[in-house]
Amino acid sequence: VLPAGNSSGHGILERLDAGEVVVGDGGYVMQLERRGYVKAGHWTPEAAVEHPEAVRQLHREFLRAGADVMQTFTFYCSEDKLELSGNINDAACNLAREVADEGGALVAGGVSQTPCYVQSHNETEVKAIFKKQMDDFLKKDIDFLVVEYFEHVEEAVWAVEVLKTSGKTVAATLCIAPQGDMHGVPPGECAVRLVKAGADIVGINCHLDPLTCVQTVKLMKEGLEKAGLKAHLMIQPLGFHTPECNLGGYVSLPEFPFALETRAMTRWDIHKYAREAYNAGIRYIGGCCGFEPYHIRAIAEELATERGFLPPASEKHGLWGAALEMHTKPWVRARSRREYWEKLLPASGRPKCPSMATPDVR
Amino acid sequence: VLPAGNSSGHGILERLDAGEVVVGDGGYVMQLERRGYVKAGHWTPEAAVEHPEAVRQLHREFLRAGADVMQTFTFYCSEDKLELSGNINDAACNLAREVADEGGALVAGGVSQTPCYVQSHNETEVKAIFKKQMDDFLKKDIDFLVVEYFEHVEEAVWAVEVLKTSGKTVAATLCIAPQGDMHGVPPGECAVRLVKAGADIVGINCHLDPLTCVQTVKLMKEGLEKAGLKAHLMIQPLGFHTPECNLGGYVSLPEFPFALETRAMTRWDIHKYAREAYNAGIRYIGGCCGFEPYHIRAIAEELATERGFLPPASEKHGLWGAALEMHTKPWVRARSRREYWEKLLPASGRPKCPSMATPDVR
Amino acid sequence: VLPAGNSSGHGILERLDAGEVVVGDGGYVMQLERRGYVKAGHWTPEAAVEHPEAVRQLHREFLRAGADVMQTFTFYCSEDKLELSGNINDAACNLAREVADEGGALVAGGVSQTPCYVQSHNETEVKAIFKKQMDDFLKKDIDFLVVEYFEHVEEAVWAVEVLKTSGKTVAATLCIAPQGDMHGVPPGECAVRLVKAGADIVGINCHLDPLTCVQTVKLMKEGLEKAGLKAHLMIQPLGFHTPECNLGGYVSLPEFPFALETRAMTRWDIHKYAREAYNAGIRYIGGCCGFEPYHIRAIAEELATERGFLPPASEKHGLWGAALEMHTKPWVRARSRREYWEKLLPASGRPKCPSMATPDVR
Amino acid sequence: VLPAGNSSGHGILERLDAGEVVVGDGGYVMQLERRGYVKAGHWTPEAAVEHPEAVRQLHREFLRAGADVMQTFTFYCSEDKLELSGNINDAACNLAREVADEGGALVAGGVSQTPCYVQSHNETEVKAIFKKQMDDFLKKDIDFLVVEYFEHVEEAVWAVEVLKTSGKTVAATLCIAPQGDMHGVPPGECAVRLVKAGADIVGINCHLDPLTCVQTVKLMKEGLEKAGLKAHLMIQPLGFHTPECNLGGYVSLPEFPFALETRAMTRWDIHKYAREAYNAGIRYIGGCCGFEPYHIRAIAEELATERGFLPPASEKHGLWGAALEMHTKPWVRARSRREYWEKLLPASGRPKCPSMATPDVR
Repeated sequence: VLPAGNSSGHGILERLDAGEVVVGDGGYVMQLERRGYVKAGHWTPEAAVEHPEAVRQLHREFLRAGADVMQTFTFYCSEDKLELSGNINDAACNLAREVADEGGALVAGGVSQTPCYVQSHNETEVKAIFKKQMDDFLKKDIDFLVVEYFEHVEEAVWAVEVLKTSGKTVAATLCIAPQGDMHGVPPGECAVRLVKAGADIVGINCHLDPLTCVQTVKLMKEGLEKAGLKAHLMIQPLGFHTPECNLGGYVSLPEFPFALETRAMTRWDIHKYAREAYNAGIRYIGGCCGFEPYHIRAIAEELATERGFLPPASEKHGLWGAALEMHTKPWVRARSRREYWEKLLPASGRPKCPSMATPDVR
Repeated sequence: VLPAGNSSGHGILERLDAGEVVVGDGGYVMQLERRGYVKAGHWTPEAAVEHPEAVRQLHREFLRAGADVMQTFTFYCSEDKLELSGNINDAACNLAREVADEGGALVAGGVSQTPCYVQSHNETEVKAIFKKQMDDFLKKDIDFLVVEYFEHVEEAVWAVEVLKTSGKTVAATLCIAPQGDMHGVPPGECAVRLVKAGADIVGINCHLDPLTCVQTVKLMKEGLEKAGLKAHLMIQPLGFHTPECNLGGYVSLPEFPFALETRAMTRWDIHKYAREAYNAGIRYIGGCCGFEPYHIRAIAEELATERGFLPPASEKHGLWGAALEMHTKPWVRARSRREYWEKLLPASGRPKCPSMATPDVR
Repeated sequence: VLPAGNSSGHGILERLDAGEVVVGDGGYVMQLERRGYVKAGHWTPEAAVEHPEAVRQLHREFLRAGADVMQTFTFYCSEDKLELSGNINDAACNLAREVADEGGALVAGGVSQTPCYVQSHNETEVKAIFKKQMDDFLKKDIDFLVVEYFEHVEEAVWAVEVLKTSGKTVAATLCIAPQGDMHGVPPGECAVRLVKAGADIVGINCHLDPLTCVQTVKLMKEGLEKAGLKAHLMIQPLGFHTPECNLGGYVSLPEFPFALETRAMTRWDIHKYAREAYNAGIRYIGGCCGFEPYHIRAIAEELATERGFLPPASEKHGLWGAALEMHTKPWVRARSRREYWEKLLPASGRPKCPSMATPDVR
Repeated sequence: VLPAGNSSGHGILERLDAGEVVVGDGGYVMQLERRGYVKAGHWTPEAAVEHPEAVRQLHREFLRAGADVMQTFTFYCSEDKLELSGNINDAACNLAREVADEGGALVAGGVSQTPCYVQSHNETEVKAIFKKQMDDFLKKDIDFLVVEYFEHVEEAVWAVEVLKTSGKTVAATLCIAPQGDMHGVPPGECAVRLVKAGADIVGINCHLDPLTCVQTVKLMKEGLEKAGLKAHLMIQPLGFHTPECNLGGYVSLPEFPFALETRAMTRWDIHKYAREAYNAGIRYIGGCCGFEPYHIRAIAEELATERGFLPPASEKHGLWGAALEMHTKPWVRARSRREYWEKLLPASGRPKCPSMATPDVR
């Protein structure tokens, strides 16, 4: 077992430039919905003010699981979406910083797509919204900025252009499929536009399952290489199986958002994902909706050799189910080995349910 | 929407005698394993001492979800299983009480089956172990005692006999199938023995899915009626689908404990369960492994009319997906109604996996 | 490879008394419905008169597949069900005899349950119907009689009582579940009643899948042993998987009768069935609805060592897929071995369909 | 109900030019393997000589089901594959003609890909083989020629070039995926090459499921339109669901060829296919491996209005399950309607099997 630890004191670019694997955190809104603090449909982060202990605890669980970055709990926290966005941004920055400091992690302030873009398509108005949220972050001690959950590359480019004015490192992830963004711009071209706009790190988040997102990031990488551009690669996919989705993403699945249980990734699915992402040259590897603390731990455990250490929460796990050696039943003890879990095809226990659905939007 | 609230100040028997529905809490060890604080295989509650904030937060989530009882986080915390059991019992009682007082809930101290029983089958030794854990509880301010997770009714009877000496109300739940306990004693006979030993409340917990457990409690009820005995009924089943299990319970499934995701109940499965349990005459209705806060909330929402109020966490939910009315996508807004979720057969997204497994133990 | 052949000249009881395995034939009505000669719903055998070449060909395929018995194609051919029953019985006897003589097989005349029983429940009337059909058979050269597809043991007993007056050997099979007949008479008791009425051979046919039917025949065997009675055992189950059925049988499945394709047994399922039936002490082993010629061949191939020969149609098969050694694709040639087919879990190719249905009748 | 009949006396091109729907026949080798007359792996048609009654009967069933064409049972019957190919071609022509004349159908002589092409890639040798088989056909009274089951368009072009020298109409179908032939030639280009070589009718047969094949034929049609060429379109797909296959076809499925039961199309799947094919402008619509007589009947029933008549075998069917009105069980009678069967998602009855497999070749 490797000693726990991470490269405290170094910024995100220093870490990536040095070839380190940076483990991202998991999904906040879906998990806090299940814990009773977020309202599905609205998906806004007022819990940062209303129930800070709940947000703090989830941050801490991701940290203990091995996350090197605490993203501020500020999803959809733009003034056009949420009245008290300023207060929430403040509170969320404080919470992320407090927990990050418990483990040498970085704090990233995140902006996401705005209702304003779809309604007005007015660049000045949309940019003003990003500017306002960025200013909230800059009043606080954040380390870098993340542009995430954008379906339209154009809006993401606007966000990057605004955020670059801060002088901070900017990472930009789209929630698009291998087919491209909502206007058909292919991933490779999206990556080129984002990097040209100033993004230091580009990639994919949310909407589709891990292996599909790895494929999309590969297409981004190819696009950058063809254009002679360089950027670090990042990935934060769903923690759900979505084999029948494409452009519409998991939002179009009939199970979204209240019956996705069956699709949840096991920790072993995540091992495979982490390895695939790493092999694709991606070095900022995290998760989005559906990623719980134990999924993040699985990333950290799969890449423990590359990183040189295991996360604190692995004390309560053991690699590949090693902890089961202490189980009272002999047939459960027999499962404390990698081969068992790698080969297992888990049954759903739902013989009257199908294995694939028909998405509402194709 | 009904006002939140519950009958603070009344004990468990007063509540049940008055015909109230008592909502139990959910599963601690499995959820805290995923959060990074419990070791699978050992399944012991040292986190009550090591990471009290994590245990406190989970208690609080169950409370906000509508639980009327906080069970002390003391599973397997007997001296023959865990060296520092005394300290942990103390800490766990404090945490449960602290959170219970935030919402007028009751605190229940729980004892579970011992390694000693299987190894020695010595009544004196086993009873001494129960006595010691009971004494730990009695030093603290607990409201009643729970005997839970027993595969052998004989050992559960011993536990009841010990705990009744405290003068506290005793609830006793077995983790058995409709076929009976590990020695083939049928549920009706089990219930009779437990009540004769002094149990005020009897029922089933863990090992099998909700509807199977309801069936087993019904058999207990029939046994009591035939014997002319009376007791309140209680149920705290798995939050997983286990159609292919019987005596061995979900421990014998190949997916146990690290690939059970696909089997997780949706909140809508829980609505159905809560109604079935209520219709069977059961009034203490909670969950065991696999029950997360939102599952407990689903019990409280299904029985909101009977109880007269909704839990605090329903503010962030809305009945039957009502919160989705605010979603940005019109096809998701169309899902904000009961009929949609009641009829949905969720797909697993795993076309290469089966729907049922072959248990290791039949 | 063993030489083809069977014990020509010996009657059914001589064969069974000598310990021989008697292979039955498969299902006529369902297969001829697919071939365009039988009307689903009515399920009557007028094709014996209208299209004798089609019936003759199916008889011949079963014979070549290894069947030792040709059952006359006279299902539901009683005067209360079909006007021209006499002519059809005649024609059907001729066809069965013609083909049987091509391979030394026996001819069995079969009677099945009558509409009259359910409508009138009048023993005299029902018996008269059986008498009339028996007389049709006795005018022709049949070897023994079969009472089959009875849901009510009482009616089957009446049929046996009538048929025994012929002096011919009588076999009697019910289409019941392990739970018993439509009045709750358990299989063991059913077997006792049938043997006391004069049946020489008893068992199960149709309605449920092979392994369930083996289980029911075992219960019959136990009943006979307890009663100190002796009889030969017979089985002719469905060629379909019906895990969710019980008393109602496959008729209650939503897929009956026009969408049962997915449930069809593979030849490898039949190998397993034939072995289980043999191990249970059953020596008359055939099939009912869903059994095509290649399923009968699979029985004959599984029991080739016990019988001492392979059926003619095995020339075109080879045991366990041996013929694939000549396939053009190397990965298909790699499938020419027992282990491959024994372990294969066939996929349905229908990811949007469930694996189990909800029967209309439980 | 429409009167049975078809346009006797008219050739295939006259029928297609007149806008008639021509119904093809189904698959011979797989069905005769199940009936005990063909050897899997080799898949050769010696049964035409050895057991003519079996081949005649299957022809007749397809005819009664509505087929307008009897394809000679001469698959793989080239001299480089089968020694006695000449005799077999003779016998097969006689059988097809005999049955065709019972119902005014046409006889088509078919050639398929040769081992010689893959081994030698020698145009002269391969063409000589096609010439020899064609000469066998021309000695007999056949109506037109079919080039079918070609994975390489080049070999199919050679076959068309040879067969056109006969002066007969030539239809050419490839067994390729929407991605193209084994050398990556896309379907549109394949169609152009075949028509330029002289094919009057082009399309797809075997290897993939009906809806996939319809898609491939559409691509052929587009290719022809772009090239300003005209030809009739033809389709004879698998009668199996193959959602996970592409270039390798169903031969690469682990279930091929002895465990494909679960994938078999229902008659209702075929209704949908027939309609889709018709809507795509295809007028020669039949089936290949997996198509049994009742599947061909389903094509004829779906297109009964367009054709103006129902096939003889519909007397024993009734549209959309109408015959079930006579069933003894009321819940089965309730299934005698189109809506029931159109909406039904059939369960596999195999809860321990997956819904999709991993093909051996991708």
